[in-house]
Amino acid sequence: MTFGTQTKGVYAIAPTPFLPDGALDEASVARMTAFYGAAGVDGLTILGIMGEAPKLEPEESMAVVRGVLAEAGGMPVVVGVSAPGFAAMRRVAQEAMAAGAAGVMIAPPSSLRTDDQICGYYRQAVAAIGTDIPFVLQDYPTATNVVMSTAVVRRIIEENPSCVMLKHEDWPGLDKISALRRWQAEDGLRPVSILCGNGALFLDFETERGADGAMTGYAYPEMLIEVVRETARGNRDAAHDAFDQHLPLLRYEHQPGIGLAVRKYVLEKRGVIAHRTLRTPGPALSDATISEIEYLLGRLNAA
Amino acid sequence: MTFGTQTKGVYAIAPTPFLPDGALDEASVARMTAFYGAAGVDGLTILGIMGEAPKLEPEESMAVVRGVLAEAGGMPVVVGVSAPGFAAMRRVAQEAMAAGAAGVMIAPPSSLRTDDQICGYYRQAVAAIGTDIPFVLQDYPTATNVVMSTAVVRRIIEENPSCVMLKHEDWPGLDKISALRRWQAEDGLRPVSILCGNGALFLDFETERGADGAMTGYAYPEMLIEVVRETARGNRDAAHDAFDQHLPLLRYEHQPGIGLAVRKYVLEKRGVIAHRTLRTPGPALSDATISEIEYLLGRLNAA
Amino acid sequence: MTFGTQTKGVYAIAPTPFLPDGALDEASVARMTAFYGAAGVDGLTILGIMGEAPKLEPEESMAVVRGVLAEAGGMPVVVGVSAPGFAAMRRVAQEAMAAGAAGVMIAPPSSLRTDDQICGYYRQAVAAIGTDIPFVLQDYPTATNVVMSTAVVRRIIEENPSCVMLKHEDWPGLDKISALRRWQAEDGLRPVSILCGNGALFLDFETERGADGAMTGYAYPEMLIEVVRETARGNRDAAHDAFDQHLPLLRYEHQPGIGLAVRKYVLEKRGVIAHRTLRTPGPALSDATISEIEYLLGRLNAA
Amino acid sequence: MTFGTQTKGVYAIAPTPFLPDGALDEASVARMTAFYGAAGVDGLTILGIMGEAPKLEPEESMAVVRGVLAEAGGMPVVVGVSAPGFAAMRRVAQEAMAAGAAGVMIAPPSSLRTDDQICGYYRQAVAAIGTDIPFVLQDYPTATNVVMSTAVVRRIIEENPSCVMLKHEDWPGLDKISALRRWQAEDGLRPVSILCGNGALFLDFETERGADGAMTGYAYPEMLIEVVRETARGNRDAAHDAFDQHLPLLRYEHQPGIGLAVRKYVLEKRGVIAHRTLRTPGPALSDATISEIEYLLGRLNAA
Repeated sequence: MTFGTQTKGVYAIAPTPFLPDGALDEASVARMTAFYGAAGVDGLTILGIMGEAPKLEPEESMAVVRGVLAEAGGMPVVVGVSAPGFAAMRRVAQEAMAAGAAGVMIAPPSSLRTDDQICGYYRQAVAAIGTDIPFVLQDYPTATNVVMSTAVVRRIIEENPSCVMLKHEDWPGLDKISALRRWQAEDGLRPVSILCGNGALFLDFETERGADGAMTGYAYPEMLIEVVRETARGNRDAAHDAFDQHLPLLRYEHQPGIGLAVRKYVLEKRGVIAHRTLRTPGPALSDATISEIEYLLGRLNAA
Repeated sequence: MTFGTQTKGVYAIAPTPFLPDGALDEASVARMTAFYGAAGVDGLTILGIMGEAPKLEPEESMAVVRGVLAEAGGMPVVVGVSAPGFAAMRRVAQEAMAAGAAGVMIAPPSSLRTDDQICGYYRQAVAAIGTDIPFVLQDYPTATNVVMSTAVVRRIIEENPSCVMLKHEDWPGLDKISALRRWQAEDGLRPVSILCGNGALFLDFETERGADGAMTGYAYPEMLIEVVRETARGNRDAAHDAFDQHLPLLRYEHQPGIGLAVRKYVLEKRGVIAHRTLRTPGPALSDATISEIEYLLGRLNAA
Repeated sequence: MTFGTQTKGVYAIAPTPFLPDGALDEASVARMTAFYGAAGVDGLTILGIMGEAPKLEPEESMAVVRGVLAEAGGMPVVVGVSAPGFAAMRRVAQEAMAAGAAGVMIAPPSSLRTDDQICGYYRQAVAAIGTDIPFVLQDYPTATNVVMSTAVVRRIIEENPSCVMLKHEDWPGLDKISALRRWQAEDGLRPVSILCGNGALFLDFETERGADGAMTGYAYPEMLIEVVRETARGNRDAAHDAFDQHLPLLRYEHQPGIGLAVRKYVLEKRGVIAHRTLRTPGPALSDATISEIEYLLGRLNAA
Repeated sequence: MTFGTQTKGVYAIAPTPFLPDGALDEASVARMTAFYGAAGVDGLTILGIMGEAPKLEPEESMAVVRGVLAEAGGMPVVVGVSAPGFAAMRRVAQEAMAAGAAGVMIAPPSSLRTDDQICGYYRQAVAAIGTDIPFVLQDYPTATNVVMSTAVVRRIIEENPSCVMLKHEDWPGLDKISALRRWQAEDGLRPVSILCGNGALFLDFETERGADGAMTGYAYPEMLIEVVRETARGNRDAAHDAFDQHLPLLRYEHQPGIGLAVRKYVLEKRGVIAHRTLRTPGPALSDATISEIEYLLGRLNAA
């Protein structure tokens, strides 16, 4: 298992488990880490947007990092370090690396608009954390409100040798993957790993376009692994069959606003975490929503 | 077939067909209208956001209205009249009604933010077009950037007796349907029809929550009709089976930015319109994208 | 009086006058044009964002164009042609040029985000209207929500030889003017005229940074002319004295949401237009607001 | 000097001083606090949006709180506690109150859109920090992207007895002050203090509309004090004279993006803080900008 420009496979985006009173649930941190390892993922990403990272105090963030690393075995762990200021970003990045993280992930702040602003931000961020820390570029306009053209992704890769991976979750974004792979094959762009997020809503085609795999938190990482594996083996129909079977639930989990709550509900039901709790402010699921999730789980299990 | 507060079923959102040079394709207008009638939809909605209405000149808009009405048989036709100024909105609304439209649809301008701004806008719009024209309230934050709470939808319904229908496409929005139906059952809110849009991505549950049907433009209206009918008959699993079979394509058609281009491609392939052309500015489909659509169509047809 | 890459001076942004019932006030169109000519402006810009252009029907837009041109004497008139579709943009541009306009002005649609999207849009727009029509690039992020880096402005100038002028109203934007002028002096960028908008809130420094003048609608164009003239003569303090005297009112007129209503109130009071009417939807001024404008006018006249 | 619903006067928004290397400048914290006290302000607000609070680590925030309180004499100190999660908000609020703060200030997160969302957020925030901590409601749409109608401000005041003050910085917002004061006089709304921000750009009229004073960080608090005092004494012209003299600089300091850098430059020059440093990421001032500030200071001092 590796983390670097050649990484292939599935990195699970792990949520942060809380106790019903909102305190960090360290026991579930350990159990969840063991679950992902047993499921066969190739790595973990923690403290991302779906990890409720902005709601954590610095010492809590480090408790999550240490708790996951203690159970991760050899699995590489990527730590989200996005922060409003570079001082905090550097501190989290360096503490995480010292604790054994494989790398960090940086999403851009929502104020960035022009190509120069975005590229300048990444140069400054890399200078702040240190050029020796490998990092994942997160391209997720739906969440960050920052739109990166394919040319900007290229510039960030070229200007920052420590960029080893793109977390691709632009929407629509399939042609972006194709363009990057074409530039790498024909136009001198150095290779980086491309793992796809966006709730895996297009994973069936993303891998066909040249992505190396998935980095997302869908509650059944087993399916993500199967899709990536079958595509790699050239079994196109088998990959789509596996994907399509999960699409009704995956689509339900992808709803803005309540998606993470749906995901935590399923993870609780699967025994991965003890409580579905989100830290406030956050949404609660209505009875009707829960009943719909149960219906979808029933159909999935009967399939 | 009816248009009013009791309307149930499927209204197809019709695109505007263009010739390869960008001119209005009036022959396809007629053919497309006939197709929807033969498919069994309960009504048509034209000149909406997916109808490229803002790119039409006023005389073109009326040509579309007249062309559709000429072929609509008894089908009710709803005309989108959203416009930056009330003068243009009134003109289109009154000309459309005079030509035989059943009603109009109004989306809010993106500048509206507070509850009072949104409700005030609808009061002014209704005063501008005339209180005798039945209208559809379009609640589509993804496209309009206007977020209406359920309480605001209620206020607009109560303040404007000519509001006969909600085009529901909030996301997430299932609980909104439940709340409106509960208020109608228990709390004195007068009934209106609720037809759901948002590319039908949640139609399988929306009808279960109390929606009366769909108003959207997915390229296979036959499936929308089947889902609504099976849910109405209490055949929950059959409705979901019909829906799930189409979900991979429906999801693909739902991509922001290129969704309409995908839809027009499929409609051209099905012979509904002669050309997949979008009026500029608009996206073009890459070869890889077209090949993916074809793959999805192949799987759908083989199912 | 000229319109081109060498243009210097003041272009007044003219509002569109309406009668109290919202109809176009053609008499005021004529009177207003004569006023601006008598005031000594170097040109006029009509149908811009402050001209309520999106609220006009196509035939009304052309009535404004013809009405202004009929009274303009030799004054160059620039016509705003921004539109959701290129078909409408081409039509307005070509009709306006045929009627005698000097050029057109194009603002970007709010959906554009990346450098490539913005530059691509301008290439397409120029192809649509014709490469022989001189145009003004409007860089106004506060109104359009499109942020252009200085590099993007340069690209648009270099990719489109028919771009003759920048309407500069970025905020903050003084360093943008300096950078463009430096690139023109030292780095091969071809010259274009730079006229500044943004309500003239920084005109006192914009001219010192190298702008050629103003293109804005402040209700006292006489002051704008004086500031540009005194700066050109090297009378820095005199320019600032003239500017500072008007700054309290100018700042008041710059309020988002009600700025145009304030401006029309002052223009009505000055006898430039017959009615302060804005076409709906638009704000009305409270009695307290009117009383504050009157107080500011009193102080200005007493100065 | 008081902090509560009856508070009148000027609260200075204090920046956070940094050393050239970005570390907290505790000596300047003390010196700055003493300066504001000597200038005669009625209170201080720290760790607000202009205080670069999101760039501080929790222990740094508390160091600022303690440093200011140690020098504040009897001046009430309000502490900004806005945070992405309620856990952090509660912690900062309770530590600040324990250290001697007079109250806290809460700005809404940018994700809030509807009236119900905004009001619900404040109810949750108050539950989180404790109903016994007096708080300032910050209504600053330009910075937060949250638009509160006057009705929403009323609801928040009525639903949360611990709301003692409105930091008014809506734009345009003069009629909002008038409406709140009318509701308090005639319609049963309980009184709260209204202090105005938005860089003081409309302070001359805000006090006339019924605001109790200013809460902003303009680099010359002496002028703010004079405007509030002269308005209270009924000396309208004197208040405007004092205001207008500063308006050219105040306007310059109000530029988005670089405003805080301009303000820190002036405060450094005045000897209030030792270094103009902003913590990264943040803008730097060009030589031309600095020269313009110096010119404006020269004119101000010569007046």
